Amino acid sequence: MRFEDLNWLDVDSYLQQDDRLILVVGACEQHAYLSLLTDVKIPLALAEAASQKTHVLVAPPINFGVSPYFLAYPGTLSVRVTTLLDLVEDIIRSAYQQGFRKFLILNGHGGNDAVRGRLYEIANQLTGIRLAWYAWWTAHSVEQVAQKHCLKPSHANWLEAFPFTTVAELPEGEKNPPFIPGLMDAQQARQVYGDGQFGGAYQADEAVMHELFAACLQDVLKLLEFA
Amino acid sequence: MRFEDLNWLDVDSYLQQDDRLILVVGACEQHAYLSLLTDVKIPLALAEAASQKTHVLVAPPINFGVSPYFLAYPGTLSVRVTTLLDLVEDIIRSAYQQGFRKFLILNGHGGNDAVRGRLYEIANQLTGIRLAWYAWWTAHSVEQVAQKHCLKPSHANWLEAFPFTTVAELPEGEKNPPFIPGLMDAQQARQVYGDGQFGGAYQADEAVMHELFAACLQDVLKLLEFA
Amino acid sequence: MRFEDLNWLDVDSYLQQDDRLILVVGACEQHAYLSLLTDVKIPLALAEAASQKTHVLVAPPINFGVSPYFLAYPGTLSVRVTTLLDLVEDIIRSAYQQGFRKFLILNGHGGNDAVRGRLYEIANQLTGIRLAWYAWWTAHSVEQVAQKHCLKPSHANWLEAFPFTTVAELPEGEKNPPFIPGLMDAQQARQVYGDGQFGGAYQADEAVMHELFAACLQDVLKLLEFA
Amino acid sequence: MRFEDLNWLDVDSYLQQDDRLILVVGACEQHAYLSLLTDVKIPLALAEAASQKTHVLVAPPINFGVSPYFLAYPGTLSVRVTTLLDLVEDIIRSAYQQGFRKFLILNGHGGNDAVRGRLYEIANQLTGIRLAWYAWWTAHSVEQVAQKHCLKPSHANWLEAFPFTTVAELPEGEKNPPFIPGLMDAQQARQVYGDGQFGGAYQADEAVMHELFAACLQDVLKLLEFA
Amino acid sequence: MRFEDLNWLDVDSYLQQDDRLILVVGACEQHAYLSLLTDVKIPLALAEAASQKTHVLVAPPINFGVSPYFLAYPGTLSVRVTTLLDLVEDIIRSAYQQGFRKFLILNGHGGNDAVRGRLYEIANQLTGIRLAWYAWWTAHSVEQVAQKHCLKPSHANWLEAFPFTTVAELPEGEKNPPFIPGLMDAQQARQVYGDGQFGGAYQADEAVMHELFAACLQDVLKLLEFA
Amino acid sequence: MRFEDLNWLDVDSYLQQDDRLILVVGACEQHAYLSLLTDVKIPLALAEAASQKTHVLVAPPINFGVSPYFLAYPGTLSVRVTTLLDLVEDIIRSAYQQGFRKFLILNGHGGNDAVRGRLYEIANQLTGIRLAWYAWWTAHSVEQVAQKHCLKPSHANWLEAFPFTTVAELPEGEKNPPFIPGLMDAQQARQVYGDGQFGGAYQADEAVMHELFAACLQDVLKLLEFA
Repeated sequence: MRFEDLNWLDVDSYLQQDDRLILVVGACEQHAYLSLLTDVKIPLALAEAASQKTHVLVAPPINFGVSPYFLAYPGTLSVRVTTLLDLVEDIIRSAYQQGFRKFLILNGHGGNDAVRGRLYEIANQLTGIRLAWYAWWTAHSVEQVAQKHCLKPSHANWLEAFPFTTVAELPEGEKNPPFIPGLMDAQQARQVYGDGQFGGAYQADEAVMHELFAACLQDVLKLLEFA
Repeated sequence: MRFEDLNWLDVDSYLQQDDRLILVVGACEQHAYLSLLTDVKIPLALAEAASQKTHVLVAPPINFGVSPYFLAYPGTLSVRVTTLLDLVEDIIRSAYQQGFRKFLILNGHGGNDAVRGRLYEIANQLTGIRLAWYAWWTAHSVEQVAQKHCLKPSHANWLEAFPFTTVAELPEGEKNPPFIPGLMDAQQARQVYGDGQFGGAYQADEAVMHELFAACLQDVLKLLEFA
Repeated sequence: MRFEDLNWLDVDSYLQQDDRLILVVGACEQHAYLSLLTDVKIPLALAEAASQKTHVLVAPPINFGVSPYFLAYPGTLSVRVTTLLDLVEDIIRSAYQQGFRKFLILNGHGGNDAVRGRLYEIANQLTGIRLAWYAWWTAHSVEQVAQKHCLKPSHANWLEAFPFTTVAELPEGEKNPPFIPGLMDAQQARQVYGDGQFGGAYQADEAVMHELFAACLQDVLKLLEFA
Repeated sequence: MRFEDLNWLDVDSYLQQDDRLILVVGACEQHAYLSLLTDVKIPLALAEAASQKTHVLVAPPINFGVSPYFLAYPGTLSVRVTTLLDLVEDIIRSAYQQGFRKFLILNGHGGNDAVRGRLYEIANQLTGIRLAWYAWWTAHSVEQVAQKHCLKPSHANWLEAFPFTTVAELPEGEKNPPFIPGLMDAQQARQVYGDGQFGGAYQADEAVMHELFAACLQDVLKLLEFA
Repeated sequence: MRFEDLNWLDVDSYLQQDDRLILVVGACEQHAYLSLLTDVKIPLALAEAASQKTHVLVAPPINFGVSPYFLAYPGTLSVRVTTLLDLVEDIIRSAYQQGFRKFLILNGHGGNDAVRGRLYEIANQLTGIRLAWYAWWTAHSVEQVAQKHCLKPSHANWLEAFPFTTVAELPEGEKNPPFIPGLMDAQQARQVYGDGQFGGAYQADEAVMHELFAACLQDVLKLLEFA
Repeated sequence: MRFEDLNWLDVDSYLQQDDRLILVVGACEQHAYLSLLTDVKIPLALAEAASQKTHVLVAPPINFGVSPYFLAYPGTLSVRVTTLLDLVEDIIRSAYQQGFRKFLILNGHGGNDAVRGRLYEIANQLTGIRLAWYAWWTAHSVEQVAQKHCLKPSHANWLEAFPFTTVAELPEGEKNPPFIPGLMDAQQARQVYGDGQFGGAYQADEAVMHELFAACLQDVLKLLEFA
């Protein structure tokens, strides 16, 4: 139930029985050996899995996020904080005036957190709107899976190494987390992070990844109830 | 050669031998019986076809454009002019500082034309940048194909009815173009345009669509030479 | 019926019987041998001619437009896209709250086309507003006059060489249109365009210019009916 | 020496011997019985008189200023503070990059004073720029003329009643200045100010106006020396 | 009655009997030998003295103003015009929606004058709001005190040398006002102004300062009546 | 070593031997029974304690933060995300051009986290700048103190109940954390949070608060080493 497979008449019908919309806010940035679109692909996979069970519509993803610190890694396409906030606001306002009322924003990238400030501003302005925010890697359920398997979640490590984000062979073993001397500029960040992974195992068993995905999907399904 | 299938090391390698990038600027808006993402799908298909031949990289698409006049059609997710301009600028600046120098912007939507003004501003600021703009439906080659087959190109008619944009059965026959009383607001536009098509045949022979696509692809390949 | 010849009491009276306003959006940019204000003077002349026949008020002109590509020509005073959009919006909102409802925007410059995006946004926000846009050189009637006289319309050629825009002797003969290698920055544009004319005859017979003006004036008068 | 009478070649020649530019920042707002463009006309008249003596170029005037308090008077077309600041900045930056270095801004309207803050920001950014600001009615020389003739200068009274701003018969006698209860909104302002004059004589002898104009012109000529 | 000594329940109670709020808009900039926060301290002292007599609430001060011309003096922390305008607007809108209606803005710094333009815009938008502006050093009462004691008020001279703004020993005697060659950038300003005082006596008798403060306080108390 | 106790000559001297600056970013918002300025007072107290030991300068605090969700609590003065980002940027740029190079931003409020995105943008633009960010309540050391005393840290509970933030008698006992149904608007937030505390004990022993403050101070001192 992605917009790309629908026309406006389909959405018109949908709105007669539902007013929920899932919006994926991602990023295009270095993820070590993983896809540059990792932060889009994970929440989008969750969105589509949830949509299959609930038939809730999935808006086209925002493919760009706020990643100024990774700009020295080729392929990182970062937008200013203000650009992202305006983009999210415009999309939500468009859908709101057509009758959508319950928005689940599935965020894929830590640098996008500022969006929440704007969402609160919007919530004060649009009567009857319901907004939910899910940043999957910060969820309690993710922490549980990680702890159960004695894995430490971190940027571009096993945590994000799903089959659908893996675009190259992954290293074996673990990486020592580098020392972070405060808030770094892009050049420093590339020097410090090297291949771009932030430390820990590069991959986990397929079963762990399944468990992780299933746990997040449960969270998403719960949030879609807007209880 | 889409970013989603690559990691940053791949882009790093690419930049040692090429500095071109294709950026698709689309829209999410009513296209009558066609996909809401029609204006993304067409330029993206061209980008990917061109990339297969030239190995030029294709950045993730901008899935949203400036469509305020279609906001009364459910599923149209429009952004403000300023939001789109900032978004395009941020993406180009990100890539430029990593070494990309030649940008082909494949625009899929007439409402996005304002982007060109910002591109000229950027051209004055970034030394050595080369920018090319292609709005496929305005191309001379498209006009030629249309005239050859006595078809009139218009929004959401046969012109955009490729197999990959068709998400529902299309009507037979032609539609009379409605009378347009100046610059309309969204409510008026929906009243006037009805199903959203702007007039003319709803579909054309598969062979015509092939010819059309091939003609546009030639244009894109030519532009990628940045001669 | 220009604002400069009126005081507020005059406008107050006017609003009791009419709610139309003409707004000229121009540019201050190189026009080869023609006046730097050519893009103001032509729509303003049309506005004043139409006002004489209809008594519709003419707001003071916006003397600056979006011309980043001509900035290497001395005398080109260009504003950012966003500046122009805000300026037009502020003026329209001011007049709207005083009772003006029907706005005919006479645009004199291609680079200003982005204004239309903002006009659609405004149309969605201000109840009962009517907006019409006329970019004279794109009109069908202009094409007809040009074809009739076997003249090709282009920037700063005969098309804009009215008596009131001519500030220097004009060359005889025609200019070969230069080859345009994509979207150029200001330095390139000056190199490519030389004297600033885009190709074609530098001047046309006085009778042609009269015919051209009359044709455009008819268009303007028609649009002022807001039918 | 107004831009409208010149082409870019003329400005090119000018810049080989001079780098000064006069920019008029005006307003379109109620001036009681006087022209809505009074705040453009006065500084423009000064600019042109100064130009005749010095051959310094005069840029096209900014016809709109910040007049939110007069929006309840029909014909007042006010722009936001930010719009005006951006507009002035864009114009100055355009001219600066072509070689203009000394800018005399002739302001015609008190509400535009915020422009000065932006000018200081620009002065810190553009090497070698010289900026002068003249708000004629605040000049010491104006105060002297007024005191000499026992006239009190105020908005839309004799002070601005030049022959070229007078578009209707002016009342005889004086008006009592109204009591101003703080910072008023537009509706209150119209109630309080009535015809829009702020108090004092509606007109002065022609000789006084000549003396006033001559005094201001002297100031302008002095400032154009950029000593 | 400063916000820092209150919790929200206190403000809740206050709003049941009063709807006035004092907002101090200051600056952090060179004041020669006086405190960098002089422009906050003076209006804040007035606010607190007035609050003691009237129990009107005093919002936390805005500690930064528009001082681009002093940026070459270490310790000057200047904000852009637009930043300050947005800041003041956000604060007023926050308080307005909680029931505050009468706002007295005590400005401490000349460079902040642009705020008034935004206040008029706000006044047109928020029904029933009352806004008063007091820039103490421009008050008639200050002029009277200065004239009475034959002192000339100027930036960072005796005028601002209250005990609570004095953070170092002050020079004896007077300073000759420097010659000001138009609108200067920050480097020029530091060269021209030297220690940062603009001319005149560095200090006045304690009794004069008491008289000055008392005169301003009377003005503030008068304005708080919002008559 | 607060700016308010210094003049520009003091800062000039300081910069000859040090280039560090502490900037407090706070908020003015409901904190249940605690001061509305709690989020300014805590980081400012840490800044001043650290300054006493290190003589590092403390800039004037930013007294307002991003608190849209608390706007229904009287006394909450919230600014837009963009306003805060611009404000922080302007202050840092001002100090940077005077020679400051190492900035420790002491944040007092969770809603201000978006500032970090802008800081990364700044870090990419200003050569040699060092930026550190400390949000005290998120520190590992705070977690340790809390766990040691079996206290749960939360908004406006014991965690923030220092003697200098306490402006009213505090309730005994604990509050049950309310259920939070997603991202709430201001009206909902007030209904859900009641007195404004987020759950847990209202106060802790004075010794705990000392321990907490000391732990944070150690963090700050460590960060000031910019190692």
